[in-house]
Amino acid sequence: MDHVTFVPTPDQLAYTFGGAEPVMRIVPRTVLTLWTEDAYGGRITSRDDVATTALNTEDLNPQTGPFWIEGAKPGDTLAVHLVDLTPARTWGASTLIPFFGGLTSIPVSPTLQDPLPERTYLYDYDAGTHTLGFTAHASDFSVRLPANPMLGTVGVAPARREVRTSLVPDYFGGNMDTPEMAAGTTCFLRVNVDGALFSLGDGHYRQGEGESCGTAVEGAMHVTAIVDLIKGGGPAWPRLENDTHLMCIGSGRPLEEAWRAGQVEMITWLGELYGLDRLDAYQLLTQISQTPIANVVDTNYSAVTKIDKRLLPAAVAYGGVHNELRSAAGSLGAVNY
Amino acid sequence: MDHVTFVPTPDQLAYTFGGAEPVMRIVPRTVLTLWTEDAYGGRITSRDDVATTALNTEDLNPQTGPFWIEGAKPGDTLAVHLVDLTPARTWGASTLIPFFGGLTSIPVSPTLQDPLPERTYLYDYDAGTHTLGFTAHASDFSVRLPANPMLGTVGVAPARREVRTSLVPDYFGGNMDTPEMAAGTTCFLRVNVDGALFSLGDGHYRQGEGESCGTAVEGAMHVTAIVDLIKGGGPAWPRLENDTHLMCIGSGRPLEEAWRAGQVEMITWLGELYGLDRLDAYQLLTQISQTPIANVVDTNYSAVTKIDKRLLPAAVAYGGVHNELRSAAGSLGAVNY
Amino acid sequence: MDHVTFVPTPDQLAYTFGGAEPVMRIVPRTVLTLWTEDAYGGRITSRDDVATTALNTEDLNPQTGPFWIEGAKPGDTLAVHLVDLTPARTWGASTLIPFFGGLTSIPVSPTLQDPLPERTYLYDYDAGTHTLGFTAHASDFSVRLPANPMLGTVGVAPARREVRTSLVPDYFGGNMDTPEMAAGTTCFLRVNVDGALFSLGDGHYRQGEGESCGTAVEGAMHVTAIVDLIKGGGPAWPRLENDTHLMCIGSGRPLEEAWRAGQVEMITWLGELYGLDRLDAYQLLTQISQTPIANVVDTNYSAVTKIDKRLLPAAVAYGGVHNELRSAAGSLGAVNY
Amino acid sequence: MDHVTFVPTPDQLAYTFGGAEPVMRIVPRTVLTLWTEDAYGGRITSRDDVATTALNTEDLNPQTGPFWIEGAKPGDTLAVHLVDLTPARTWGASTLIPFFGGLTSIPVSPTLQDPLPERTYLYDYDAGTHTLGFTAHASDFSVRLPANPMLGTVGVAPARREVRTSLVPDYFGGNMDTPEMAAGTTCFLRVNVDGALFSLGDGHYRQGEGESCGTAVEGAMHVTAIVDLIKGGGPAWPRLENDTHLMCIGSGRPLEEAWRAGQVEMITWLGELYGLDRLDAYQLLTQISQTPIANVVDTNYSAVTKIDKRLLPAAVAYGGVHNELRSAAGSLGAVNY
Repeated sequence: MDHVTFVPTPDQLAYTFGGAEPVMRIVPRTVLTLWTEDAYGGRITSRDDVATTALNTEDLNPQTGPFWIEGAKPGDTLAVHLVDLTPARTWGASTLIPFFGGLTSIPVSPTLQDPLPERTYLYDYDAGTHTLGFTAHASDFSVRLPANPMLGTVGVAPARREVRTSLVPDYFGGNMDTPEMAAGTTCFLRVNVDGALFSLGDGHYRQGEGESCGTAVEGAMHVTAIVDLIKGGGPAWPRLENDTHLMCIGSGRPLEEAWRAGQVEMITWLGELYGLDRLDAYQLLTQISQTPIANVVDTNYSAVTKIDKRLLPAAVAYGGVHNELRSAAGSLGAVNY
Repeated sequence: MDHVTFVPTPDQLAYTFGGAEPVMRIVPRTVLTLWTEDAYGGRITSRDDVATTALNTEDLNPQTGPFWIEGAKPGDTLAVHLVDLTPARTWGASTLIPFFGGLTSIPVSPTLQDPLPERTYLYDYDAGTHTLGFTAHASDFSVRLPANPMLGTVGVAPARREVRTSLVPDYFGGNMDTPEMAAGTTCFLRVNVDGALFSLGDGHYRQGEGESCGTAVEGAMHVTAIVDLIKGGGPAWPRLENDTHLMCIGSGRPLEEAWRAGQVEMITWLGELYGLDRLDAYQLLTQISQTPIANVVDTNYSAVTKIDKRLLPAAVAYGGVHNELRSAAGSLGAVNY
Repeated sequence: MDHVTFVPTPDQLAYTFGGAEPVMRIVPRTVLTLWTEDAYGGRITSRDDVATTALNTEDLNPQTGPFWIEGAKPGDTLAVHLVDLTPARTWGASTLIPFFGGLTSIPVSPTLQDPLPERTYLYDYDAGTHTLGFTAHASDFSVRLPANPMLGTVGVAPARREVRTSLVPDYFGGNMDTPEMAAGTTCFLRVNVDGALFSLGDGHYRQGEGESCGTAVEGAMHVTAIVDLIKGGGPAWPRLENDTHLMCIGSGRPLEEAWRAGQVEMITWLGELYGLDRLDAYQLLTQISQTPIANVVDTNYSAVTKIDKRLLPAAVAYGGVHNELRSAAGSLGAVNY
Repeated sequence: MDHVTFVPTPDQLAYTFGGAEPVMRIVPRTVLTLWTEDAYGGRITSRDDVATTALNTEDLNPQTGPFWIEGAKPGDTLAVHLVDLTPARTWGASTLIPFFGGLTSIPVSPTLQDPLPERTYLYDYDAGTHTLGFTAHASDFSVRLPANPMLGTVGVAPARREVRTSLVPDYFGGNMDTPEMAAGTTCFLRVNVDGALFSLGDGHYRQGEGESCGTAVEGAMHVTAIVDLIKGGGPAWPRLENDTHLMCIGSGRPLEEAWRAGQVEMITWLGELYGLDRLDAYQLLTQISQTPIANVVDTNYSAVTKIDKRLLPAAVAYGGVHNELRSAAGSLGAVNY
């Protein structure tokens, strides 16, 4: 397998899905060793850096990429296997941004209330214990939490000539902000334009489901991934597979629409894997679905429909590419950045 | 502790929260051994019983109760600890009901499309292996799933003189339809009227999160519960505690509003337990929240906000009543129905 | 026609749809001369009376009624023709209530933001010019607006044994808060329980569409109405007819669901009136529908689907009862209270 | 004033807001005489042309433009005054498209139900009577409706480097699909990129509010407009002014969010015009707002907040540009295409 290392300079960062020139052309089955800047563009470095003064709100969620995948055509399936995610700094930051988040009014659903106060929380990251330190602002409380590295954004260019900011999650992936996007997971995305134009970014050292305040423990990340291409079979919505679960992620508004999209996608997938008709799959899913919310804070909300593989007979998705990439990842040896 | 056994006759079943005469007056710390009819009123007994011909849609989700709790006053907290849930039949049933469920149009959000076909699935329940058998209708597929008994409805009478059908989940509990309502869990509900008027029902032998098609593996249930009363402290939304997690359940429409209600309730609870101000609790919750959807099929949708106790310092909720009832449950010995 | 006058004493007021004892039994085609208290229960009488200190939030939207309509059975259609609405006081009041209204967070969709400041606006009502005086609090601005008397609530008891507060709009009518509920209009409601248990209240001297802040120019009202009964034909959602328009009102959340309910109801009505199949009616409605929002502030939101009668061939709805009651109203002579 | 005539060839049509090369550079106060293709790209010409076979769903809502406005900078206000809209064909068409429209399930909120049947309705346009003929498919019913020409889309390029399809309504205008976008109206849009990149299209010979089935009486249109530029003052959401009303249009999902955006925009505008603080403007708007829904079928829903100018003291918006352009339009003489 080809092995490519790419650490973008600040002016190589992209801020959109679609619309940006590819940074590189790669062939399927390439191993990528990448570095991603944090969602703030690295502008939050202390508890005193608050959103209003520190952020450039036009340039959030910088993307590493996009990569042109040789041979990728609309309708194909891009498989992105996350081999390893390692925090690239000794701290991450979460910040309350005015009129942004799940428990405040927001510009697209405004009220006349004042914004919440701004606050920035710095979490030190201890690589030895793989933990993060939370310290409260207004009371004497601190706690160490296990790190749980994940990527907020994994996406490809959209269809219909569109260009979307890297803040958007949708059928093309993007800013889904789910803790499921962790090492060991393969993400399947439909290719919408020639070359797919795949990118990733928005590393989180840890995030709860829902991403309540709108920002996780955001931090620069070392990323190792293997990118593969399957001809045809592009799913309507992103699908994920890891060793234990199958998942589909819908995004939209209101939140029940995101849930519906993920559910119907899973019903389609169950049909492909087990030959179930749609009503039988609907019934079965009713009894086995897990549905963690991904985010309720982005321009679209995202919800995961998830199935524990142990509940069902063994089945091979996408020709077994997850297992193959998992294996290939194992043979890479220790990842050093 | 008092120990009361109550198996309702068909004409003792209730179909509302509020409005029904109490079947019995009990004192706090009473152990209840109950039997609940299934959500269909026992009218589905074979694969040929479909909703249109078999159901009385005015009389769904029959409740066992309500029980008048001596001393319960508006603003108090009712604690219901589920000691044991044991399937009371050797089969459960899930049925596709026309214009009901999460992946069909519904009367309150109608489209001009035809309804989905009706189908009833019977799941045999094997008490030895504690499993349920699923058999597809339209393909040659069957699988056995672990049983996971839970109650769809646990609720008290609402405030403002209201009477709500037992199909509704809301601040008073009710038809929340979450798999979290399982044995070992304590449910805290605000008392809204004198005597609380607590009831439960809608046993599920198994349900996925979201209850996609609208009906779980519905079945009659043997229920053992201990009911306790805490003066004051009534939560705005239902709270749950088990040995591993704290949970809050919001209900509403659209789904993001249910999520918001549960999140803010948890922020309030974190404040009570740890002295965190609301912004600190918001921040902390952002990184540790689990948010499984409960249902996207009822008159209100329900979403759970859930915290793993291991992530936080030990804390005592409601004076430790969960642990006390857990202990008391343990000393009851084997449950025989 | 029987002619009944009823002015409730404070303890005769009802606060629910369903659940309250009828104040009186009347026969179809009775003329009712009524008085309704304002939504605040008369507790706001000056600019210094703000919601937090003046209101009893358990007792809002007092109803005059309910009236038992002799012969009314579930499935029948109650017709309520509003003959006259005359302000019963020389002032009305609108007040900003904390965490209530369309442009603030609300308890069922909470945020962590502070509530908006409280303010009460008193509008003097001048019967001669039939105008209302608005005076700003924080700037030197005042304007006189034409009065436009209407009723916020017209409803019957719900089905399924339910009792709902008079704050709720739903399929049974209730707190729809539409300016269309004005003199000259006939409201058709499905009867859900024996006797229908009809009531009305929540007079508004004027209200914009949407009722943005949650309270119109609320005021006690003299009401003259004629109540009639049509056997069978009960609509799924409230229908209105006046001399110029046919209307259907859906209520629900999110707002698009309220719109859908009203649209499908109108498609059904067009089918009844013109023999159009549902797709033809859908197409025709697409080009002629008017859709003023009623309210975006109540426990359900309400949206009106409205058709200008001049666009369609003449048709007779409900056997022409609107025209008959209009005529009967005309022959009542001048209304004096 | 400059006067420019532009009739695009098929390959000059644009299908996005942003991303397309300008067809022409014009100075402020230019009169544009344009022709717009219908939303179907002219592919529906008979009742037998149904969506599935006739449409290219990648190329809908073709735009005439974009025009680069000299001197337009982000933050400025573009004023587009519609002088005249005249149907350019003798027929328009409305078609039921599978899984598209307000009363069917849709891809972003899927159900498992079958799509509605396809049907295409052709409306003949009679220029003499200015009427359109509707003929039912499944019954013997026909009616002539007054034509009411309007434009579905008027928009500029979005911010944040985005490119959106011409099917989207949002803060940049676009596919708002409101009958208010008629001759005599001035539309104010914030400029987001240098040159504004303004375009229009999607002519409707008539449309009801809500655009229920998703397609109005779609037809090619002759358009005369005057484009002007105001430095600064760009509104957050589109504002409209005609001789009788001020309007703001919010777009989003769910529908109440679109309503909120339009309401807050109007509150801001009332503040600018009358010096009212936000709470006073909120109160006043509560009593005078008209809120016709624009569309409940597009990727975002749109709702209009509308005020009758007669209710308020005279005020001058944007330096009186509406009146000036209205006057200038009058002096153009008869419009001949």
